[in-house]
Amino acid sequence: MSTSTQHEHATARLSSDGGPEAEANAVTVLGLGPMGQELAGAFLAAGVRTTVWNRTPGKEKELVERGAVRAASAEEAVAASELTVVCVVNYDASDAILRRDAVTDALKGRTVVNLSADTPARARDTAEWADRHGIQYLDGAIMTPAPSIGTPDAVFLHSGPRELYERHLPVLEALGGTHTHVGSEINRAAAFDVALLDIFWTAMAGYAHAVALARAEGIGARELAPFAQGIAAILPPLFEEWAGDADDGTFSGRINPLTSGASSMAHIVHASEEHGIDAGVMRAVEGWARRTIGLGHGAEGFIRVAEVLGRH
Amino acid sequence: MSTSTQHEHATARLSSDGGPEAEANAVTVLGLGPMGQELAGAFLAAGVRTTVWNRTPGKEKELVERGAVRAASAEEAVAASELTVVCVVNYDASDAILRRDAVTDALKGRTVVNLSADTPARARDTAEWADRHGIQYLDGAIMTPAPSIGTPDAVFLHSGPRELYERHLPVLEALGGTHTHVGSEINRAAAFDVALLDIFWTAMAGYAHAVALARAEGIGARELAPFAQGIAAILPPLFEEWAGDADDGTFSGRINPLTSGASSMAHIVHASEEHGIDAGVMRAVEGWARRTIGLGHGAEGFIRVAEVLGRH
Repeated sequence: MSTSTQHEHATARLSSDGGPEAEANAVTVLGLGPMGQELAGAFLAAGVRTTVWNRTPGKEKELVERGAVRAASAEEAVAASELTVVCVVNYDASDAILRRDAVTDALKGRTVVNLSADTPARARDTAEWADRHGIQYLDGAIMTPAPSIGTPDAVFLHSGPRELYERHLPVLEALGGTHTHVGSEINRAAAFDVALLDIFWTAMAGYAHAVALARAEGIGARELAPFAQGIAAILPPLFEEWAGDADDGTFSGRINPLTSGASSMAHIVHASEEHGIDAGVMRAVEGWARRTIGLGHGAEGFIRVAEVLGRH
Repeated sequence: MSTSTQHEHATARLSSDGGPEAEANAVTVLGLGPMGQELAGAFLAAGVRTTVWNRTPGKEKELVERGAVRAASAEEAVAASELTVVCVVNYDASDAILRRDAVTDALKGRTVVNLSADTPARARDTAEWADRHGIQYLDGAIMTPAPSIGTPDAVFLHSGPRELYERHLPVLEALGGTHTHVGSEINRAAAFDVALLDIFWTAMAGYAHAVALARAEGIGARELAPFAQGIAAILPPLFEEWAGDADDGTFSGRINPLTSGASSMAHIVHASEEHGIDAGVMRAVEGWARRTIGLGHGAEGFIRVAEVLGRH
């Protein structure tokens, strides 16, 4: 509710001047999967004139009932607004939409914000394409699930020219949550995205595996959960401490040397495989630890692994 | 400081009755590595009569200066107290100490608490050995690093006969922190231990890998850390939600279906390998996801992986 009040305020501010300001209060959304639908819905709820298009038709129906403008083609869609927000499955999909001549031509002089997820290299490649065609380009990453959009919980990261980001921020803020400009280099939003998803999915894999292992020993997931939450609670201070170690090249293993960690990892592998549970993830983790120990770092902390992984 | 006050109080309570109570206020510590030294030090600080022994001599020096009794052999050490706490590198090491005839004989009728880390299977095997020799046995796990011992932060899990646990708890509480009896089945402390270490080390590997990946994209570890802490903060509610899904056999992928997670995992693998960074851990995680999708669960949530891992 407080979000909708904020939205009304933002809309009033944008349209009070009339003319170009009112025209700027418009957006095109390409891609109406679960995330794209939430994005378009949040723009509509905030009073932003919203044009929508999806590769396969039909997904715009509910949005049109709520006031969205249905475009017959991607080129018609991007011509309707100064700002186009793209949210499709990956950059193969966004390239297939944006890099058709009719769409590229219609985008000239306008701005694209690509919120699709992919690698930093694809963001760089898209920025080069945009530059060649006189299109202004911001790359973005949505760090929270679809239901967060339009709420204070949503987290957006953006990278690209700061002036361009600031110009479009009033409309983007209709999406709710927090928006952070993580740098003018176009790769940075995607780089944060993949690094943070790396932490998320690896931790989740550890949890799923732990549930399987605990069950094999007669412990239910609900019994394990409070202790698992205790483990999650000790991560943030360790992340901070190890970030300092990594940046400063100090790798103190005083509290927990790599050799001791590797011993724990071996126990986890053995305990899993005794129950026929695949331990491929922990075998790979132990491999990193053993390789780092083999390079002479056994008395140092586990974060030394980051430095070894980055060596060429 | 509040801890030392608690210790003085506990000591006063234990010794005020004199006679058998005072005699029970004694412990033997076998193994004086970093953790064993902290254990013995905490017992001493709490006024418990502490006998110490280590396979290689010399490590007891400082403890003896603080009042510990130095035993000339493991058999002499275990004969000095009703309760022996063992903390060595693993159960190969504890077997090498405990399963010598002289030591086994001296332990008859006494209690061993093995706080060494290893697999649940080794705890079961040790309990069988103890039973054959008339030795009372508790298995335990220390979930926090050595400096936590003697402070409120220490976390101990114990399993084995509840009556035995309760009998020795007054002395064990000299170690500070929280003690939880996680079940009378002897495997349970070790099972919780390996499952929780599984989560911890897998998450830490994700963090170390993310630091390497972020660096390759020009992002420092300290820049990444606050966002990484944000990821850690969303884990506890997900652990709880997924525990319910796992126990109830519901695997809703409404917010984040497996297919979407697998797509993110592929981005992480590609982004890493483009920089020559080993992605073996994430390749293994993606393998679990793809295998689970291949079994027809692509629209379900990632925790379905736990169920697939546990299948035989």
